[in-house]
Amino acid sequence: MKKNNYPDIYKKRISVLVSDSDNTEPKKILLVKHEDIFYFTGFYGKDSGSILLISPKKTYLLVNFIYYEQARSSVGDDIEVVLYKGDRIKEAANILSSKKISQLEIDGNNININDFNQLEKELKRSRIKINIKKDITAQLRMAKDSHELEIISKACSITDNAFNKLLTLSNREIREFDEISLANRLEGFCIESGGSGRSFDYVVASGPGSSMPHYISSHRNISEGILLMDFGTLYKHYCSDITRTIFVGKDKLDKKLKEIYKIVLEAQLKAIEACREGIRCDQLDGIARKYIEAAGYGEEFGHGLGHGVGLEVHEGPYVTRKNKAVLKENMVITIEPGIYIPGLGGARIEDMVVVEKNGCRNLYSAKKDFTFLA
Amino acid sequence: MKKNNYPDIYKKRISVLVSDSDNTEPKKILLVKHEDIFYFTGFYGKDSGSILLISPKKTYLLVNFIYYEQARSSVGDDIEVVLYKGDRIKEAANILSSKKISQLEIDGNNININDFNQLEKELKRSRIKINIKKDITAQLRMAKDSHELEIISKACSITDNAFNKLLTLSNREIREFDEISLANRLEGFCIESGGSGRSFDYVVASGPGSSMPHYISSHRNISEGILLMDFGTLYKHYCSDITRTIFVGKDKLDKKLKEIYKIVLEAQLKAIEACREGIRCDQLDGIARKYIEAAGYGEEFGHGLGHGVGLEVHEGPYVTRKNKAVLKENMVITIEPGIYIPGLGGARIEDMVVVEKNGCRNLYSAKKDFTFLA
Repeated sequence: MKKNNYPDIYKKRISVLVSDSDNTEPKKILLVKHEDIFYFTGFYGKDSGSILLISPKKTYLLVNFIYYEQARSSVGDDIEVVLYKGDRIKEAANILSSKKISQLEIDGNNININDFNQLEKELKRSRIKINIKKDITAQLRMAKDSHELEIISKACSITDNAFNKLLTLSNREIREFDEISLANRLEGFCIESGGSGRSFDYVVASGPGSSMPHYISSHRNISEGILLMDFGTLYKHYCSDITRTIFVGKDKLDKKLKEIYKIVLEAQLKAIEACREGIRCDQLDGIARKYIEAAGYGEEFGHGLGHGVGLEVHEGPYVTRKNKAVLKENMVITIEPGIYIPGLGGARIEDMVVVEKNGCRNLYSAKKDFTFLA
Repeated sequence: MKKNNYPDIYKKRISVLVSDSDNTEPKKILLVKHEDIFYFTGFYGKDSGSILLISPKKTYLLVNFIYYEQARSSVGDDIEVVLYKGDRIKEAANILSSKKISQLEIDGNNININDFNQLEKELKRSRIKINIKKDITAQLRMAKDSHELEIISKACSITDNAFNKLLTLSNREIREFDEISLANRLEGFCIESGGSGRSFDYVVASGPGSSMPHYISSHRNISEGILLMDFGTLYKHYCSDITRTIFVGKDKLDKKLKEIYKIVLEAQLKAIEACREGIRCDQLDGIARKYIEAAGYGEEFGHGLGHGVGLEVHEGPYVTRKNKAVLKENMVITIEPGIYIPGLGGARIEDMVVVEKNGCRNLYSAKKDFTFLA
């Protein structure tokens, strides 16, 4: 039963969240997403059905009996852990009704319509009005604090190690795996390096399958030729995300694939070079995109340049053609251009970087020069 | 680009869903959950943002460009695949508005309040009323058809194989794993046996950690003593789920743990013996629970007896103390009593069974007599 080591971090995050208001009355907020709850309390309960009620005076964490002890030992003294026995929405409404509040904010993306209708009905009696918002916590969570950056850096160095282990396999050895079993082994490499499991369902695509951005790995054996691996680890609940595209064997080096690999790498390096505080997401996307377009493959780069990474493997900011948001210091984003040629194959190279005042810091050192397993 | 082999199954499922109505007007239904969409179309697009519009005359599957080809090659001719470019809710509303319908059913558990509000606003113009329901597809999906039973049986036999592989490890060999790496290896055993990956985040708990039903596996090495493993595989998008509790080494056999193991096993066998069409969920739960209570461990069995398994690892019916629902032929459920003693350890034994007219069929043959690794 150890208390968490960073209660001050959580207190500070809550105070920023509730004070970030146009109103004179400080915000009261109900959160249900487990990553949000962890971010503000230190309690991690995936699929636990927990609810966090944040108010300037007091914060309540509602959990069921399975998570009660864990929650109590995870959070600071300023948070009251409430054990709910029956209906969690009703219990939350009861607490809210006992306080003299007039408004409550919720994140409409995270609450389903059945739960919302029930909550609204319960709160109507106490004349509490619900304000439905979107991405309440996103802005705050995008820029990482030093505690988070330390953990994310470690997650990335674990991932570097895993990729280095993969590179020790020979051409013959890697072809003994099929795509699914190689994904399992890659996760094993992350675990051996200190990770606590995969941060998402890996993409391991050998040959033409690599041309599909959402390819589902199969039981086909790894073959000679192009091999795309999009993987990552969890570490202290934070995610890493990396993509490396390598070539198995020297003999079947398709010239066109080698060409697109070099274009993708150059586009990625240019985007990393340009990434810094103050640049807009669409501008950064445009730097890689224009390079790829000029090389004649604009149509074959069919996704955005990157996305934020943190407690979720995909979170804001989304580095796309359309997003006009400006990058700020300590945001952590991926930079991952790709070119995909149906029937032939695809190449994507993905790093994670921390946005800094005058540039960015790449969190990976994993090799990305043209690489083949001999 | 092969067409799916079972379009008749999907057609039949849709016709059952829309005709299961108290109204004279057949139902129009909007679904967003990817397991539901797969169940009615054969298209599997996890996190794809797809929408299925089911109506008696025609069914529309809305997908984005990334999934368009896959969707077209997955579904039968009776389903129109629509590529949406902008806002998916708007596009769905446009299709609905062009039809002469007055009502639409949605599953309120699967649609968030922001999406719902947008949909309602768009449909208001066409005077289409939304009826918010709960678990629209649950009843239908609970009883499996022969095609599903074949796949689920295979998933379970893969899982049997994986457990048998684990049992070939020696006391010394298994203690070279930590909990997380053993989970990874167990998944590897499933993959080697033909599975396509884990069906949920495994619980591998060595020693006292086994007393926590929602234990999170750690980097601590497997030690001599009790070892609880809750795992399973995906196979053709269906799940298996199994728990086995074994003992590592003969020397540290705690008498009390051996005693609770035998009680749990006896309780499980009694429940399996009683499981058949016509029994209520609470009655079945009660059979295991009463036996455990009589043995003095009622308080230490702090969860329900089981749950349905199919496209989701947890789905209806929920075999709990409170659920009065009656089991029907071809439902697939887990039977998994457990006893958990804080600080000492816990034992749980979980099988999956198919409910039959006069009994049930256990989908596993994995050893569950008291087992230790020498």
